Amino acid sequence: MKQSILFSKTRKESPKDEVSKNADLLIRAGYIHKEMAGVYTFLPLGLRVLSNINEIVRQEMNKIGGQEMFLSALQERTIWEKTGRWSDQSVDIWFKTKLKNDTVLGLGFTHEEPLTNLMRDHIRSWRDLPRYVYQIQTKFRNEIRAKSGIIRGREFLMKDLYSFCRDQKEHDAFYEIVKDAYMKIFARAGIADKTYITFASGGSFSKYSHEFQTLTSAGEDTIHLCLNCKIAINDEIIKENPACPRCGNRKLKREKSIEVGNIFSLGTRFSEAFGLVYVDEKGAKIPVIMGSYGIGPGRLMGVIAELLSDEKGLIWPEEVAPYEIHLIAINDKTGAVVGLGEKYEAELEEKNISVLFDDRDARAGEKFADADLIGIGRQVIVSEKNSAAGIVEIKSRMTGTAEKKKWETFVQEITHEK
Amino acid sequence: MKQSILFSKTRKESPKDEVSKNADLLIRAGYIHKEMAGVYTFLPLGLRVLSNINEIVRQEMNKIGGQEMFLSALQERTIWEKTGRWSDQSVDIWFKTKLKNDTVLGLGFTHEEPLTNLMRDHIRSWRDLPRYVYQIQTKFRNEIRAKSGIIRGREFLMKDLYSFCRDQKEHDAFYEIVKDAYMKIFARAGIADKTYITFASGGSFSKYSHEFQTLTSAGEDTIHLCLNCKIAINDEIIKENPACPRCGNRKLKREKSIEVGNIFSLGTRFSEAFGLVYVDEKGAKIPVIMGSYGIGPGRLMGVIAELLSDEKGLIWPEEVAPYEIHLIAINDKTGAVVGLGEKYEAELEEKNISVLFDDRDARAGEKFADADLIGIGRQVIVSEKNSAAGIVEIKSRMTGTAEKKKWETFVQEITHEK
Repeated sequence: MKQSILFSKTRKESPKDEVSKNADLLIRAGYIHKEMAGVYTFLPLGLRVLSNINEIVRQEMNKIGGQEMFLSALQERTIWEKTGRWSDQSVDIWFKTKLKNDTVLGLGFTHEEPLTNLMRDHIRSWRDLPRYVYQIQTKFRNEIRAKSGIIRGREFLMKDLYSFCRDQKEHDAFYEIVKDAYMKIFARAGIADKTYITFASGGSFSKYSHEFQTLTSAGEDTIHLCLNCKIAINDEIIKENPACPRCGNRKLKREKSIEVGNIFSLGTRFSEAFGLVYVDEKGAKIPVIMGSYGIGPGRLMGVIAELLSDEKGLIWPEEVAPYEIHLIAINDKTGAVVGLGEKYEAELEEKNISVLFDDRDARAGEKFADADLIGIGRQVIVSEKNSAAGIVEIKSRMTGTAEKKKWETFVQEITHEK
Repeated sequence: MKQSILFSKTRKESPKDEVSKNADLLIRAGYIHKEMAGVYTFLPLGLRVLSNINEIVRQEMNKIGGQEMFLSALQERTIWEKTGRWSDQSVDIWFKTKLKNDTVLGLGFTHEEPLTNLMRDHIRSWRDLPRYVYQIQTKFRNEIRAKSGIIRGREFLMKDLYSFCRDQKEHDAFYEIVKDAYMKIFARAGIADKTYITFASGGSFSKYSHEFQTLTSAGEDTIHLCLNCKIAINDEIIKENPACPRCGNRKLKREKSIEVGNIFSLGTRFSEAFGLVYVDEKGAKIPVIMGSYGIGPGRLMGVIAELLSDEKGLIWPEEVAPYEIHLIAINDKTGAVVGLGEKYEAELEEKNISVLFDDRDARAGEKFADADLIGIGRQVIVSEKNSAAGIVEIKSRMTGTAEKKKWETFVQEITHEK
């Protein structure tokens, strides 16, 4: 992609109405546009990052047997009344709307109800279980305050996975599998070293649920780290018992954090409300045991922007960066440098290596500042001085270190990495 | 994908509350689930078809220079008041909702307004034009009646492309390019031979806009074909002048049809309302010339289901089918046939050929009926009788013809096709 064509522009000034670092950086670098508090548009660079995160999530969900589907946003009253979650008193984040005939509809803030309802058409016997179903879909939540950029949206993308099992044992085994899959996702997203499995309240069907909390000063939550077990405990649990549930340790470290994922055992709460039962080997009708498991890809993008950035701008981990290479042509008096850059760009694209090529008619300093703000990990600089010898300068956005290499050598190296 | 695990089940009975063929077939075959009139959930098979259509659209949009982004559904009053499209009197298909502080928001039924607004941050000079921007995003339209299955939804996916040009000439050239791209999309979706470029009213900025109308008895529109020019004219234009605008022919053929795409010249209607201007080479401020271009991937899927189906079920064109191959194991007394099928399935997946493998413990007749209903173009049957000789039977869903082949020969042939 040629930067001279990319429609989004960077800007030097911070937006006036943002207090969060993630929104400030992402707006200045041309990744997102604010429509209103908690509602953002994803510009081409931002959508590429979001799609990369979605793809990581999708791959890890497919690996554990997840089947992808896509539920609707518009929701009917009758479905939600079955579990007592329709009224604004019981759920205070509903957005409601109306059909022309005045029928009130809701905009889905989660999807346990409609999914449990539709699974009745597809689950009959023990042979139809277990099943794992997920979607990556837009949720709407009528938050009173939304000041955390894309970390807490009124409209945001959510990956929600739901499990349908025959018994508690089958459920518990899958619950552990999801825990591992989630940590793989956070590792690929570059935030694993700051992310802790966190004990949280389990509701009526299990003692604990689990959150995945990432340490950041921008955090809305407080967690308590057990450094022995490398796990955390959330505030709610600590108030009941200020000790690690695993080892009993009472010397816990208090930290600010943000929830990047959560997993819940739902037991039979939803299956009983909807009559989602299966017939077992002996002919008995048994309610299905359910679980739900969420990750917000947009929130994850915001957390990465908070954690992996510096005073110059964003620093994307490799797998989520909008492009693998930022190719930058500088000091081009005759047009020869951009010409060579175009050749390099075509060569990378031919090898399926994605590249943003700064072919703009602009000063080197401006290009470097923009490249640091945009934050692609590997900057490859083609200059008039080096181009005659076929040499490029490769600069790491993370470490700032640079080295010169023959173009061919560089291409060989990155092709090997893939 | 093993069919024994796929959670969706086929059903023999038609749903009671559907009058449209597309919804009837897609529900019976396990592609979609009806949430309410005009609102459908996409089950795994349905989402695969929808994603394939999205990918065709995306490829053709990228080829003509489209940059993908993703706008929000929630919309603010002030933006839409600038063009007079906020009130329910001017636009009667709005879904409106409210923030906690009683601020009224809309759910986007299109996106000219927010996009024109945000482009002011990115378009300044003649060097920043032309730009072509698109998204594949969920639209909400409060239709009074929604009885056409996924062809007319209250919530549906839309690909909307917008062009920003310096002058009419630049705009007109791109408008023609989009026409061609659209016909390529309809060709890949298997409906080109029934789809006509159709003259429609142009509004205030051009004499004509263009619709893409596909002939079908399920059509909500009436068009008038000029068989000389192989184009069509819509009812509105015909009422003013019952002749082909291209050749003057008055012998036109009246047909029922459905709109699968449309393209509009918007002139400066939106750019003037928002002050989206650029500075030209001479320093003058000129309003940007815009165009908008829509295709509904879900509607397209519905139209394909209407057109390409028979009494047995769906018949997907190759590029949109949920899987390339439907592998079917029959008459398996010992488990050896399914075992061989698993080997074949792995071999195809290894070659990146997608396959649905019917490994279920069910009668051959039931499997064939399900395969015809699901409608993957190429059915490959592994039976006890033929498996010893390494022979499979390849059946075309379209023609019903079958031929026997060595498995290796078949694999070689389809690998070559790719």
